[in-house]
Amino acid sequence: MRIITISREFGSGGRELGKRLADHLGIPCYDQQIIEMIAEESGLDKSYVAHISEKSIQVAYPMTIGQRFSMPRPANEQQVSVISAQKNLLKKLASETDCVIVGRAADVILKEFNPLNIFVYASKEAKIKRCLERASDEEAISEKEIVKKMKQIDKNRKELHDLIASTEWGNKAEYHLCINTTDVIIKDLIPALANYAQMWFKNK
Amino acid sequence: MRIITISREFGSGGRELGKRLADHLGIPCYDQQIIEMIAEESGLDKSYVAHISEKSIQVAYPMTIGQRFSMPRPANEQQVSVISAQKNLLKKLASETDCVIVGRAADVILKEFNPLNIFVYASKEAKIKRCLERASDEEAISEKEIVKKMKQIDKNRKELHDLIASTEWGNKAEYHLCINTTDVIIKDLIPALANYAQMWFKNK
Repeated sequence: MRIITISREFGSGGRELGKRLADHLGIPCYDQQIIEMIAEESGLDKSYVAHISEKSIQVAYPMTIGQRFSMPRPANEQQVSVISAQKNLLKKLASETDCVIVGRAADVILKEFNPLNIFVYASKEAKIKRCLERASDEEAISEKEIVKKMKQIDKNRKELHDLIASTEWGNKAEYHLCINTTDVIIKDLIPALANYAQMWFKNK
Repeated sequence: MRIITISREFGSGGRELGKRLADHLGIPCYDQQIIEMIAEESGLDKSYVAHISEKSIQVAYPMTIGQRFSMPRPANEQQVSVISAQKNLLKKLASETDCVIVGRAADVILKEFNPLNIFVYASKEAKIKRCLERASDEEAISEKEIVKKMKQIDKNRKELHDLIASTEWGNKAEYHLCINTTDVIIKDLIPALANYAQMWFKNK
């Protein structure tokens, strides 16, 4: 099985890169729909699953005021069940077919499948620019709001990742390839990247 | 001008990668010979230039014992002249022809040329393995010695880089592509990498 995982900073274009790479390789790309699959399987509400799985793991780590030392509160039962459902689903998907998986701490969860782990990042300016371009006219979003959202989402991704893994999100040592998408047209890099992935797997 | 700079951890195969990439692209690769060129131009001894340029910048930063606060001692005149000669030489080389430059803080020095900056790294185990394979039978070197050498050389590279630059050596944000060579046959990745580099420059 050839599994490619894409971890990414918010606004770096990692999702686009994963989708295009999968299309080029002729394999499925799993991203947001993982949330729906988990919701379906677990019987939990989709937005609740999204909340736990991506949007905020912070509920498990409340701020402790007035206490010098604080221990993280263990995740509650439903959180554990969502994280566990995500693990099972990712392993099921990975054992069924070659695929690209965006986010979901798949690099850690699918370690036994020896995935090619890619990290996608960009400069803050490039990420803001990408977000502004992506936002439609209707959902007018200010630069300030984007920066805030960017910080929060990356923080959540890091927390979710580091909760599951003993490794550190975004540390290049944990990935096989780190791609800076600053000032780059992602589409144009895909053939070379697909080729790189193919050769990387051939090496194994 | 299309300039590719290769920064690398000791033992990661960065030099091999740079050389092969240059060969594939049909452009020169500048590495150790830069030392010789500087020595020739400056009239200084080659091993002295190598000492300053790569092996140890520490002479400029003596340990200060018994003092609470210590300022780094400014580099001496000859050190400054070597570093300055290196800067001039790199700029001269880069303005003459497309090329690959391995090490020498070229990513920082050649910033105005908008180079493609690649960082090559690997796991500690992979780097030790590569060093052991590279060492000939005559120069028997122990694993312990390799680890010591590895630490020292990377420390020197970082110090030299950070002395010249306001950026941090090895921080992925400073590079366009970071390649993990752990368990990888470098030769096999070159065509894809060369293609990536070509597309990256086309994007500019």
